[in-house]
Amino acid sequence: MSKKIIVFGEVLLRLSPPNNLKIFKSKTFDAHYGGAEANAGASLALMGCNVNLVSALPQNELGTSAESEMLSYGMKTNIIKQGERIGIYYFEQGASERPGRVIYDRNSSSFSTLKKGTIDWKTIFKDAKWFHWSGITPALSQDLAEVCEEALIIASEMGLTISVDLNYRPSLWNYGKKANEIMPDLIKYCDVLLGGIDDSENCLAINTTGKDDFENVYKKWQEKFSKLKTIVSTLRYDANASSNTIAAVLWSEAKLYRSKEYKISHIIDRIGAGDAFMAGLIYGILTWPENLEKASEYALAASCLKHSIAGDINLSGVNDILALMQGADGGRVVR
Amino acid sequence: MSKKIIVFGEVLLRLSPPNNLKIFKSKTFDAHYGGAEANAGASLALMGCNVNLVSALPQNELGTSAESEMLSYGMKTNIIKQGERIGIYYFEQGASERPGRVIYDRNSSSFSTLKKGTIDWKTIFKDAKWFHWSGITPALSQDLAEVCEEALIIASEMGLTISVDLNYRPSLWNYGKKANEIMPDLIKYCDVLLGGIDDSENCLAINTTGKDDFENVYKKWQEKFSKLKTIVSTLRYDANASSNTIAAVLWSEAKLYRSKEYKISHIIDRIGAGDAFMAGLIYGILTWPENLEKASEYALAASCLKHSIAGDINLSGVNDILALMQGADGGRVVR
Amino acid sequence: MSKKIIVFGEVLLRLSPPNNLKIFKSKTFDAHYGGAEANAGASLALMGCNVNLVSALPQNELGTSAESEMLSYGMKTNIIKQGERIGIYYFEQGASERPGRVIYDRNSSSFSTLKKGTIDWKTIFKDAKWFHWSGITPALSQDLAEVCEEALIIASEMGLTISVDLNYRPSLWNYGKKANEIMPDLIKYCDVLLGGIDDSENCLAINTTGKDDFENVYKKWQEKFSKLKTIVSTLRYDANASSNTIAAVLWSEAKLYRSKEYKISHIIDRIGAGDAFMAGLIYGILTWPENLEKASEYALAASCLKHSIAGDINLSGVNDILALMQGADGGRVVR
Amino acid sequence: MSKKIIVFGEVLLRLSPPNNLKIFKSKTFDAHYGGAEANAGASLALMGCNVNLVSALPQNELGTSAESEMLSYGMKTNIIKQGERIGIYYFEQGASERPGRVIYDRNSSSFSTLKKGTIDWKTIFKDAKWFHWSGITPALSQDLAEVCEEALIIASEMGLTISVDLNYRPSLWNYGKKANEIMPDLIKYCDVLLGGIDDSENCLAINTTGKDDFENVYKKWQEKFSKLKTIVSTLRYDANASSNTIAAVLWSEAKLYRSKEYKISHIIDRIGAGDAFMAGLIYGILTWPENLEKASEYALAASCLKHSIAGDINLSGVNDILALMQGADGGRVVR
Amino acid sequence: MSKKIIVFGEVLLRLSPPNNLKIFKSKTFDAHYGGAEANAGASLALMGCNVNLVSALPQNELGTSAESEMLSYGMKTNIIKQGERIGIYYFEQGASERPGRVIYDRNSSSFSTLKKGTIDWKTIFKDAKWFHWSGITPALSQDLAEVCEEALIIASEMGLTISVDLNYRPSLWNYGKKANEIMPDLIKYCDVLLGGIDDSENCLAINTTGKDDFENVYKKWQEKFSKLKTIVSTLRYDANASSNTIAAVLWSEAKLYRSKEYKISHIIDRIGAGDAFMAGLIYGILTWPENLEKASEYALAASCLKHSIAGDINLSGVNDILALMQGADGGRVVR
Amino acid sequence: MSKKIIVFGEVLLRLSPPNNLKIFKSKTFDAHYGGAEANAGASLALMGCNVNLVSALPQNELGTSAESEMLSYGMKTNIIKQGERIGIYYFEQGASERPGRVIYDRNSSSFSTLKKGTIDWKTIFKDAKWFHWSGITPALSQDLAEVCEEALIIASEMGLTISVDLNYRPSLWNYGKKANEIMPDLIKYCDVLLGGIDDSENCLAINTTGKDDFENVYKKWQEKFSKLKTIVSTLRYDANASSNTIAAVLWSEAKLYRSKEYKISHIIDRIGAGDAFMAGLIYGILTWPENLEKASEYALAASCLKHSIAGDINLSGVNDILALMQGADGGRVVR
Repeated sequence: MSKKIIVFGEVLLRLSPPNNLKIFKSKTFDAHYGGAEANAGASLALMGCNVNLVSALPQNELGTSAESEMLSYGMKTNIIKQGERIGIYYFEQGASERPGRVIYDRNSSSFSTLKKGTIDWKTIFKDAKWFHWSGITPALSQDLAEVCEEALIIASEMGLTISVDLNYRPSLWNYGKKANEIMPDLIKYCDVLLGGIDDSENCLAINTTGKDDFENVYKKWQEKFSKLKTIVSTLRYDANASSNTIAAVLWSEAKLYRSKEYKISHIIDRIGAGDAFMAGLIYGILTWPENLEKASEYALAASCLKHSIAGDINLSGVNDILALMQGADGGRVVR
Repeated sequence: MSKKIIVFGEVLLRLSPPNNLKIFKSKTFDAHYGGAEANAGASLALMGCNVNLVSALPQNELGTSAESEMLSYGMKTNIIKQGERIGIYYFEQGASERPGRVIYDRNSSSFSTLKKGTIDWKTIFKDAKWFHWSGITPALSQDLAEVCEEALIIASEMGLTISVDLNYRPSLWNYGKKANEIMPDLIKYCDVLLGGIDDSENCLAINTTGKDDFENVYKKWQEKFSKLKTIVSTLRYDANASSNTIAAVLWSEAKLYRSKEYKISHIIDRIGAGDAFMAGLIYGILTWPENLEKASEYALAASCLKHSIAGDINLSGVNDILALMQGADGGRVVR
Repeated sequence: MSKKIIVFGEVLLRLSPPNNLKIFKSKTFDAHYGGAEANAGASLALMGCNVNLVSALPQNELGTSAESEMLSYGMKTNIIKQGERIGIYYFEQGASERPGRVIYDRNSSSFSTLKKGTIDWKTIFKDAKWFHWSGITPALSQDLAEVCEEALIIASEMGLTISVDLNYRPSLWNYGKKANEIMPDLIKYCDVLLGGIDDSENCLAINTTGKDDFENVYKKWQEKFSKLKTIVSTLRYDANASSNTIAAVLWSEAKLYRSKEYKISHIIDRIGAGDAFMAGLIYGILTWPENLEKASEYALAASCLKHSIAGDINLSGVNDILALMQGADGGRVVR
Repeated sequence: MSKKIIVFGEVLLRLSPPNNLKIFKSKTFDAHYGGAEANAGASLALMGCNVNLVSALPQNELGTSAESEMLSYGMKTNIIKQGERIGIYYFEQGASERPGRVIYDRNSSSFSTLKKGTIDWKTIFKDAKWFHWSGITPALSQDLAEVCEEALIIASEMGLTISVDLNYRPSLWNYGKKANEIMPDLIKYCDVLLGGIDDSENCLAINTTGKDDFENVYKKWQEKFSKLKTIVSTLRYDANASSNTIAAVLWSEAKLYRSKEYKISHIIDRIGAGDAFMAGLIYGILTWPENLEKASEYALAASCLKHSIAGDINLSGVNDILALMQGADGGRVVR
Repeated sequence: MSKKIIVFGEVLLRLSPPNNLKIFKSKTFDAHYGGAEANAGASLALMGCNVNLVSALPQNELGTSAESEMLSYGMKTNIIKQGERIGIYYFEQGASERPGRVIYDRNSSSFSTLKKGTIDWKTIFKDAKWFHWSGITPALSQDLAEVCEEALIIASEMGLTISVDLNYRPSLWNYGKKANEIMPDLIKYCDVLLGGIDDSENCLAINTTGKDDFENVYKKWQEKFSKLKTIVSTLRYDANASSNTIAAVLWSEAKLYRSKEYKISHIIDRIGAGDAFMAGLIYGILTWPENLEKASEYALAASCLKHSIAGDINLSGVNDILALMQGADGGRVVR
Repeated sequence: MSKKIIVFGEVLLRLSPPNNLKIFKSKTFDAHYGGAEANAGASLALMGCNVNLVSALPQNELGTSAESEMLSYGMKTNIIKQGERIGIYYFEQGASERPGRVIYDRNSSSFSTLKKGTIDWKTIFKDAKWFHWSGITPALSQDLAEVCEEALIIASEMGLTISVDLNYRPSLWNYGKKANEIMPDLIKYCDVLLGGIDDSENCLAINTTGKDDFENVYKKWQEKFSKLKTIVSTLRYDANASSNTIAAVLWSEAKLYRSKEYKISHIIDRIGAGDAFMAGLIYGILTWPENLEKASEYALAASCLKHSIAGDINLSGVNDILALMQGADGGRVVR
């Protein structure tokens, strides 16, 4: 599949204590590089897609290392080298009743100080088919919200399909604007959206009532944002830090499809499970445009496998995902 | 909370193969320092209490290292530097149907050769509110049984609240006395006791019948040891080496309270889960003296979290424990 | 138990990423040495048996290392030092819905280029009681099929009890012969066989129908191979890569015995679980020849414990296995 | 030695690739906590001194971890919990001709946003004998320069001996002032100074000529800063990243003393070697106030040992340092 | 520098025990991917060149992993996915008087079974400026010797500059031809050659006498291979496994230039030091075509730094190399 | 070489911090099993000798692990399973000016509580050619001194060659006897002795003067102990913890031979260097009985290589040692 996909977002250094240790008193950190959009892009590249990652990193060994990691997944990179530091997040794996914990340290990063007019979007979008971004980027600074708008206008004009993962993180929106003041003006350019009922008011400024279900809510969303053709959400229940059950809903052409579910009994790393879903969905829509249910099942199987893989990025190939989707379980060693 | 708490017990070097390996053929050992009473003290210090640890260690790099570790949890230390060696225990993590295994190598340790008259208890207990010890110490030597008695008499005279964890380990009582010949004379000084029905005959020299339940047994205990005001026990069922369910009972003023239960599906390390409970109980009694049920629930939540933390010591803070106690599960990453 | 047991098979270098990582992007590999027959032999030696391992390895540091590892389990070794390379297999641990994966790289290994006439079987079998081999060896080359036959003829003549684990791996049979063209001529020498219904047509060239159960199938096998006295199979269900339930069936003197079952909730490493069963069975038959049900239960308990042990080889001793078989669970730390 | 010593400075998280790896492509980082002044304080505490560390850290798991580490060396802590983040520096160990490399990421740290009036210096300095700070602190922000002045005025008034390590790092002075605009007003309070000829113009605003030697330069310094009684510098030559030779000069009462030299053939970690010297010097002046040559030799031996110890902090005890100073070499295993 | 460079060679999996351990009894192996030509290519890519790597790898997780690693250095890849296995070499780091040791296990690898006509050289060489290969490739099989010739003919026709590293490894030439029967027909296409006096007879079939020096020998070479414009050799002396001194000679236009020398006192990893030199030389010739002495010095500085870097590949950037070349040593931490 | 060699001594668990870390604050320990005599035996077995190790270990997982390790080197074992604990020693690697450090924790070990009459020496010595012991064993307890005498009498009667390594460790002789009260009665049975001038008074009760050289001293020894035929000593100079120069002297038939010397510039682990020498000497005397100079050179080369190998035991084979002895250095990678 050679259709060109553009993803835009921050690449962070993730520091995690090994072996489920707590940050407190940990003497080593495992280093991973990732970020919501880059994770989705890397997964798409591993599925054989032609992916370009647009981001910004500092001109130092951390920036070089992050870019090298992105290249290693087979993505092309358009990295603006500027600014002072790579954004960091500390991630403490949870276990059983102890929740995982993320501590962000990404203020003043190279990416969060990006300015409008810096990126040559027209060249980047040339020959591209799809543009993916997430709600994390406009949360980081007013400037980045403007960069997002700039990109979305050009991508729309050039006819790219546009997807967004709302990824609502209240703790990141701290430059004086709320998500629902900024996001609606960006979502209006999007064709595909990943978000849940809770995001309605927070991100889309659309009120819901306790009685609303996915069907109602997504209908309202589509009414407000007429370009939206496909809306999806992942579901997680019976969850503790080590096990959970996942499923998905997909809404398209006024119909809601609910996927099968996967019981995941032993979680290795749940960071990036949503990004793996997003990548699976984009791959699925591009591959089976007439069968969005299949796209959704593929996305969920991808997300299921991500839970068994350390780091931010789903390392599974298309065949692994299809095998699970078609009923294989993990109970037999593949020889 | 600035009330001063004194804990007295041995600090051991724990040697455990990493990654659930067996001792047999293991090429590295993880080193932790701990012991039943020190574990409880460290947990109390991490909860913000003013804790003094009284112990003995050799004047060598192992002794220095053990003390440094104790300081790192925020405890103050009163360490007698004497003797030849630090006590050791080897701990092999179990998994599923394979039980964990402890091999003690603590004979002739600096602590076990402590003698009466060595420790200046009056100075140590000055301004203190609480004294905690466990049944492990008098098991180690006749001398240590005498040191315990010496401490208990002075603590009683000085009006400290006294707690004991029976911690009955038959394999440690090998200097010629049985636990139930020694323990009753020490338990009579105690206000708070952690112990189960099985301990009645073994430790308290009080017979029980198969029909006795916690209520009956604890009533008998209180009758014999009139100072006892609060008696607790932890319960463990549906257990293998990787998962179990825990609960607790607390008896006070002739009433028995049974806690809620926690199903722990993935155990990281169960050593010290009882000590975490003990620390939680002491914290709870000091913080909510009018609400021992709350103290007991807090203690159980603390113990639950300990199962998810490597090493002997519960690294959880008060907020983590309260969050679990108030209904949070591990299913959501804290950001 | 001093009865001499001979095992014959390849010793491979296993390379596995640590900590459930995938091979893709793994920067280190854990090195284990093992192979179906060697695993069984090592486990028997750890149970106190007098085991000789017959194999071939290259005259280099890898060969020396593999032999050293075999010696470390208490086996004696008869290693032909010849050829160019040690056989390798890469093993990627699965997790939950992600299956484990084996990639073989064992062509042209020292063992697979062994030729008939190289091994002095008469000397090796002197004073021996039992000979164990598996269906992996004749899969590797025509030459090795001939070596197997050579050994089986002599072992038969010298009166050894002979056991075989069918271990059918379709991907290994690629020198132009199918398993069911080769295996029947070898199985006819065997007294004890480990294999399941699926192997009937593939390995023994005996047709089965969908309605056949163990009883029917094993009856047909015994009819065709009149020397077969004991036939066993392990069962695995409710399986994913991290948990499963196991049981066993044993057929002897026209009766089928079905074992109890073990639910294994947290698998550490399932490679070698069949070999651990085989070792337990041989030990059991030698120890309780009049009580094959007990032998079978012992074998299953051995296999259960193997799931909790990293590497190819069951490191459990007789007492550990008996304890589990007699009802101990892993829920209590052994002190 | 129970004289109370106060040190003031930032505690940073140091992230270093293990085993001399480069930051580029490193997958793990070793975590150490330290900083020039904290390193000196920790070393003094390990020598038995009564040390208080004054600093600021964020109210999160990194802040807690850093404080725990400081406690583990036996220091007391006065930590202001404020601000957003812990300062970081990445350290890449060099080897042979490849130089070590430090990348600072400490802007906007909790410490660097400290403000005048926050710290209760009078209480902290009560009963204290010595105050140690370094030129790194006023480099970080105008606010911190003011905090330094505030502390120095009070320390002077209360009669503490004051030592400063110039620690000139041009890359840190970037808030608009040069070191030599700020430092002279702070140095005038100091009794003991660690600095070299190169610092004269950069830090003290005192010109030197190419012909000036230590004697001339230090004389000029003493003339300008009349409180200065003892001035020292370490020397390093024949250096690559793995080996070097060190020595020291000490100037006091108009006399210059040059120490013996140590050839260090295998450097483990040279970070903190200057801080180890500073700690040794403070210990030496307090212990042998009449014999500053001995103090200087002791300081140099301490610094020599630091080169053989991983991390920022000299873990050597007084006896180890005296042994080296008195002629022991590393050529004999101590048993 | 955007000139396109093509490198052709095998990418191997290198398995090395960590921490200078021996292969014998090592329980883990560090995994690196590299090979003489790929190492040179990766280093050139890290210097900013536009490099394409042409190779063959199996269609499995090892092949994917090797390609991912090559991408991570910034190279483009043209990988033929074919064959059964990735070639392996085991590398045991030496120390002091114990030499390093390489055990090859690369027979029947995907690369060594490449056939003429498989690679589309014309497309690959389009717009390319330089082609680099080494004497290892024609050593592996007759087929590969033919592939080399095929590539060299086309590269010559298309006007690329061609460089070769003789890399004479007697143990690899075992398909029935000697190096000096094959190499001369390939060397005749080359412009730049890396090789020493010892290679004259073995690789070029040109006799030398004991009295011949570099000048004589290189003159003979140039006479026989008239296209050769630049001939270089690295020198190594005062060597043990942990330290050595290196230098280089460069012959061009009938003049011999001898470089300065570097004493490397602590070797981290000397594998790939020659490939780092080769990369430096290519970079140097492309950058300073009029100043081959400078190119040679740059190449030697690159090689010097490689000795301080773990793995096969020189991770140094242009600035690092220039700094060393211009006189910086490793004695000062870069901040 | 199939001559049977018996070695007798304690097998200890060695616990060492990895990567040159200090014991203080180390969080993991590498585990090795060894002891002076076992180290010599293992090295002899790796050279192809038929070695039996006689020792005592506890009946627990540590004892099993230690025996397994001994078997892995190819030794046979005669282990008395008795007593409570395995002896331990902590070893802290030194570096440069920081000396290595050993902390013994071996009191009350299984070995040190061995009693006379426990070991069936006659059976063990059957068909044996050589018996090796060291001065460590009689230092541990009066009982062990008696066991040594018992063994020596029988070995003498049965005609074995007897070697002793004096291995004088003052800190071990603490049961009330001095070495020179016990050792002379044991040395009188020995043919081969490893010891230096300093041992003369301490171990052999023979006074020396400052003017005595090896020749004088060894002459006196031979006069007192007439059975002594060969006396050797290793020499170490220009030593720090990371580098030194070694040589040896051998005295036989009234002649003193001084070996060449090796400068070891980078020591990996010097523990066991003397035991490696001892093994080399025994191998040498057995192999070249007419050429003791060669034996001595072989022993020194073995000892030199041991310095480059982690752990207690020299893993070098005969060919490696001969290669060094014949002039190879470590400067060339063996391919």
